[in-house]
Amino acid sequence: MLFSSEPFDVAVVGAGHAGIEAALAAARLGMKTACFTINLDAVGNMPCNPAIGGTAKGHLVREIDALGGEMARAADAACIQYRMLNRGKGPAVHSLRAQADRVQYRTYMKHALEQQEGLQLMQDEVVSVETENGAVSAVTTAIGACHPVRAVIIATGTFLGGRIIIGDYTRESGPDGMAAAGPLTESLRALGLRLQRFKTGTPPRIHRRSIDLSGLELQRGEEEIIPFSFDTEQPPENRAVCYLTYTTGRTHEIIRANLNRSPLYGGRIEGVGPRYCPSIEDKVVRFADKPRHQLFLEPMGLETEEIYVQGFSSSMPFDVQRNMLHTVKGLEHAEIMRPAYAIEYDCVDPLELRPTLETKKIRGLYGAGQFCGSSGYEEAAAQGLIAGINAALCLKGEKPLILDRADGYIGTLIDDLVTRGTNEPYRMMTSRSEYRLLLRQDNADERLVPIGVRVGLNPPERGARVRRKYEQVQQEINRVASVGVPVTDALNGFLAGKNSAPLKAGCKLIDLLRRPELCYADLAPFDPDRPALPAVIREQVEIRIKYAGYIDRQERDVEQYRKLQSRPLPPELDYSAIDSIRLEARQKLNAVKPLNFGQAARISGVSPADITALMIYMETRWKGGNA
Amino acid sequence: MLFSSEPFDVAVVGAGHAGIEAALAAARLGMKTACFTINLDAVGNMPCNPAIGGTAKGHLVREIDALGGEMARAADAACIQYRMLNRGKGPAVHSLRAQADRVQYRTYMKHALEQQEGLQLMQDEVVSVETENGAVSAVTTAIGACHPVRAVIIATGTFLGGRIIIGDYTRESGPDGMAAAGPLTESLRALGLRLQRFKTGTPPRIHRRSIDLSGLELQRGEEEIIPFSFDTEQPPENRAVCYLTYTTGRTHEIIRANLNRSPLYGGRIEGVGPRYCPSIEDKVVRFADKPRHQLFLEPMGLETEEIYVQGFSSSMPFDVQRNMLHTVKGLEHAEIMRPAYAIEYDCVDPLELRPTLETKKIRGLYGAGQFCGSSGYEEAAAQGLIAGINAALCLKGEKPLILDRADGYIGTLIDDLVTRGTNEPYRMMTSRSEYRLLLRQDNADERLVPIGVRVGLNPPERGARVRRKYEQVQQEINRVASVGVPVTDALNGFLAGKNSAPLKAGCKLIDLLRRPELCYADLAPFDPDRPALPAVIREQVEIRIKYAGYIDRQERDVEQYRKLQSRPLPPELDYSAIDSIRLEARQKLNAVKPLNFGQAARISGVSPADITALMIYMETRWKGGNA
Repeated sequence: MLFSSEPFDVAVVGAGHAGIEAALAAARLGMKTACFTINLDAVGNMPCNPAIGGTAKGHLVREIDALGGEMARAADAACIQYRMLNRGKGPAVHSLRAQADRVQYRTYMKHALEQQEGLQLMQDEVVSVETENGAVSAVTTAIGACHPVRAVIIATGTFLGGRIIIGDYTRESGPDGMAAAGPLTESLRALGLRLQRFKTGTPPRIHRRSIDLSGLELQRGEEEIIPFSFDTEQPPENRAVCYLTYTTGRTHEIIRANLNRSPLYGGRIEGVGPRYCPSIEDKVVRFADKPRHQLFLEPMGLETEEIYVQGFSSSMPFDVQRNMLHTVKGLEHAEIMRPAYAIEYDCVDPLELRPTLETKKIRGLYGAGQFCGSSGYEEAAAQGLIAGINAALCLKGEKPLILDRADGYIGTLIDDLVTRGTNEPYRMMTSRSEYRLLLRQDNADERLVPIGVRVGLNPPERGARVRRKYEQVQQEINRVASVGVPVTDALNGFLAGKNSAPLKAGCKLIDLLRRPELCYADLAPFDPDRPALPAVIREQVEIRIKYAGYIDRQERDVEQYRKLQSRPLPPELDYSAIDSIRLEARQKLNAVKPLNFGQAARISGVSPADITALMIYMETRWKGGNA
Repeated sequence: MLFSSEPFDVAVVGAGHAGIEAALAAARLGMKTACFTINLDAVGNMPCNPAIGGTAKGHLVREIDALGGEMARAADAACIQYRMLNRGKGPAVHSLRAQADRVQYRTYMKHALEQQEGLQLMQDEVVSVETENGAVSAVTTAIGACHPVRAVIIATGTFLGGRIIIGDYTRESGPDGMAAAGPLTESLRALGLRLQRFKTGTPPRIHRRSIDLSGLELQRGEEEIIPFSFDTEQPPENRAVCYLTYTTGRTHEIIRANLNRSPLYGGRIEGVGPRYCPSIEDKVVRFADKPRHQLFLEPMGLETEEIYVQGFSSSMPFDVQRNMLHTVKGLEHAEIMRPAYAIEYDCVDPLELRPTLETKKIRGLYGAGQFCGSSGYEEAAAQGLIAGINAALCLKGEKPLILDRADGYIGTLIDDLVTRGTNEPYRMMTSRSEYRLLLRQDNADERLVPIGVRVGLNPPERGARVRRKYEQVQQEINRVASVGVPVTDALNGFLAGKNSAPLKAGCKLIDLLRRPELCYADLAPFDPDRPALPAVIREQVEIRIKYAGYIDRQERDVEQYRKLQSRPLPPELDYSAIDSIRLEARQKLNAVKPLNFGQAARISGVSPADITALMIYMETRWKGGNA
């Protein structure tokens, strides 16, 4: 029996990484928000890696932070080992990654939601979304409550239609023995949404005492920790270590010998898995010539002996998993505490979504996270934040927030999803960003804090702080551009020591700084008036000077990109009638209904010729007074 | 497909309060032990009250500690507010109760299991118990593992066949959105065990900010904290407060008006609920003349805003719950974070069990906790400990541990269950113990530490420490019995101030101490040679002197009781052939198969005349050389 219950502005379905950011953002923007979860003890759960960040994902976390999200702050409160990945490469691909204490992370996040004014966190399962005239009007829950709402954000992760698979064992279930969400799938389907079935997987957790660590490579955290949040003042400490080991030829033999028992290869898994986060059996099959694969042994927290075997995701039967594991160096006697498993779940075809993450078919209905076809905590959180912001902005009658590909990885991620769609769990990578030299983790604050201020998630003081920071950077660049360096024996001696060409005539300090082999710190003895500046400022000065040429070029690319982006297309345009465009392109354009020429050009199956034809059509239409 | 997996001595099914103690005890006694749980993140979960102890339950916790169990230590690590209940009454009913931080408690317990040598904690569901020749031989799990085992302890709590009910909403589920255990019920039934269906319930959790605390009674913790464990040296601190409020006439009206929607009264609940922990609708119906009922508002932990509404357990529909709650003073605007619910589950008829908690039908199969028909974390832990100990002792070929009713509340609890059975969740109460003046929480160490040493759970040093403690107590009693007190004006002045009769002649110090109005501390000025003794020693001296008469009488009762207990009955005796016993008694005796005359006499339906007849029969049989 249904009964009418408390009304809310925004209902968020799920309290994982996407739901958390969505709910916090909506509430912080003044919306009366409800966040529903099946298990209140699993808010912010990490069902897979006990880690936040990683290549490209670290960028997302810093962007979330800059916009006013929570993930970075939670990570800094709960992380126990930090590393900046790809230090050997250019600054564009430097990415923060940190091991987290799962229990602390969950505790922090649940408390953050609880303490948020205007937000109610409730243990209850949303079973259907009600609509009126094409717009959401209410959610009904398993216990019979019908809450009138003005917007709904679906952030169901792997719970929606969740089914766990281990060999020939299968069970309707969320991760870790939690109940799956059932009826909502049918409700969404009835609203006309095209759903997909994806799968993901997770490796076994093993007991620390059962690992022979003696011959394994130790992975320590960085000595100088850079926190995730630009606002974390007291840097976190490294309190744990990881280990590195490898699969062996014997591991691969066992996998090959048991492929007939793999649900992945035996057809028992119907969902599509993540290409860039494959199971170990997938890796062995797809990269048959690789003699071994890396495995990282990561602690699940400070107060537990559980160790996560990163790289060993599997859906093999349990006996095979155990035999595979025991062929790995150091894991010969590993005790499995949680078996590896695959999990299938229902999600939406992201072509159903606008760049605001609102569905095209139902006004006020948004998606975020795995539900939109992505994989990863950080990808989920990024979408949650954008969906939460847009739900609130829309209800307030304000302009939506659409980050473009030049604004950040978040914009790239969402543009990829809603423009190209995905038929497998989408993972963020630095190579997906064509502007990655501009979109660094180190300058996410410059790029996005002002946007966070504008939408209302960041206090104006935060904006002022970031402005001051980058003014200081510019001042210092101006200074080193004007400071002259005379030729001296000391300088040329120093240059010789760095294998750098000697100076024949005096130059500006900036000229020396442009040399790849010299760095800002090294040149201090030749720069007597150098002001004392914080490390983050010095880093910016260095990057901006060293990469100025590349940065300028990408900035010009962005200008080009934004020109196309700024040419709008009417969302209701019917492409099927435009004969000058190829049939395939017409169909694709009709499926996506791009907001502008830029988005149209990125649709797969739409050629430059189609875009030219579309431009001509639109100009003619414009002249004919139809636009 | 089943595959043979790692063998264990003991398999424990469940990692709640019973399973934890069972697994730790078995492993500590040298058994290779596996502990299976459906959700590794919910080890030691408190699905109901965020509290440990309470009247009679506090006794159990201290007894568990004295025997070498873990609960008291976990409580001292995780509790945030301590109170000694019933301070106004005699020491027999003083009971410790403390509010716990749920997350900390879980984290502590999971880590304790993980750190225990010889114990493997595994996330997997046991689906059947295999037997050979009437003895357990293996457990099989959901993922297809078949572990050969020599003993199995079932500690499934509310998970076995779990079904949650809120109004007309019902779902197969464990507590808090966790998956229920399914197939094991059928396996146990197939082994011939008589199963029952019980239910229990829990109140709503509400958000702290939604409570108007201004008019509510504050409940602070004790200033001088006594920890649960006799070995906790640094007493815990009070870090939280509770509040007291009451239901109103309006609450009761709403309940009465909606009884037709109550699953309890509408017949949708088939399980039998706990008499002494009734739902609020039950209380209103059963105690129709009571104008109000107490409700305690208890924090769920330090890092959460969830508040537990103790006393408000319900299975009413959610809308009724909310309306009921809003009629309570201070809760007019309460936001419900988790709804109240009833949960039904499968459990065994405890008459199937021996006093060792082994089933009579299957050798090596034990039960513990709610599975044996009890209610409460402490009752569960106590049984887990005894089942774990006995499984280990049996496998080691040692004498079982059977605590009798004079040994402690644990013995009383188990004797009640296995001798009288129960048709509703059994809760421990001080009134259930006929020897409660001897079985105090303060002397649990004296009573049970030596037994813990004997079975091997306590190190011998702990036994020595307790012996020294009670030697000190006896020395001090001897001293005050020999120290004379002369009549002085100062003494008689002091006595007058205490409304105590003046001394006419000198006496022994002990004579003054026997006066109820005087206490040991008060008499210090008249006892110049008094040694400096710790508070726990002084307390014992005082209790032993003040209650000596009652204690002596109960000790004589215990002698009588133990005489009957020491007269064994053959476990295979067929009572149906003993014509001198009434038919009902014969049937009951055959159902229980008591181990001795004491147990036989406590079976309901067995009269003193039946016992006399049985004695005569046994003596005749003895003389006839048949025994």
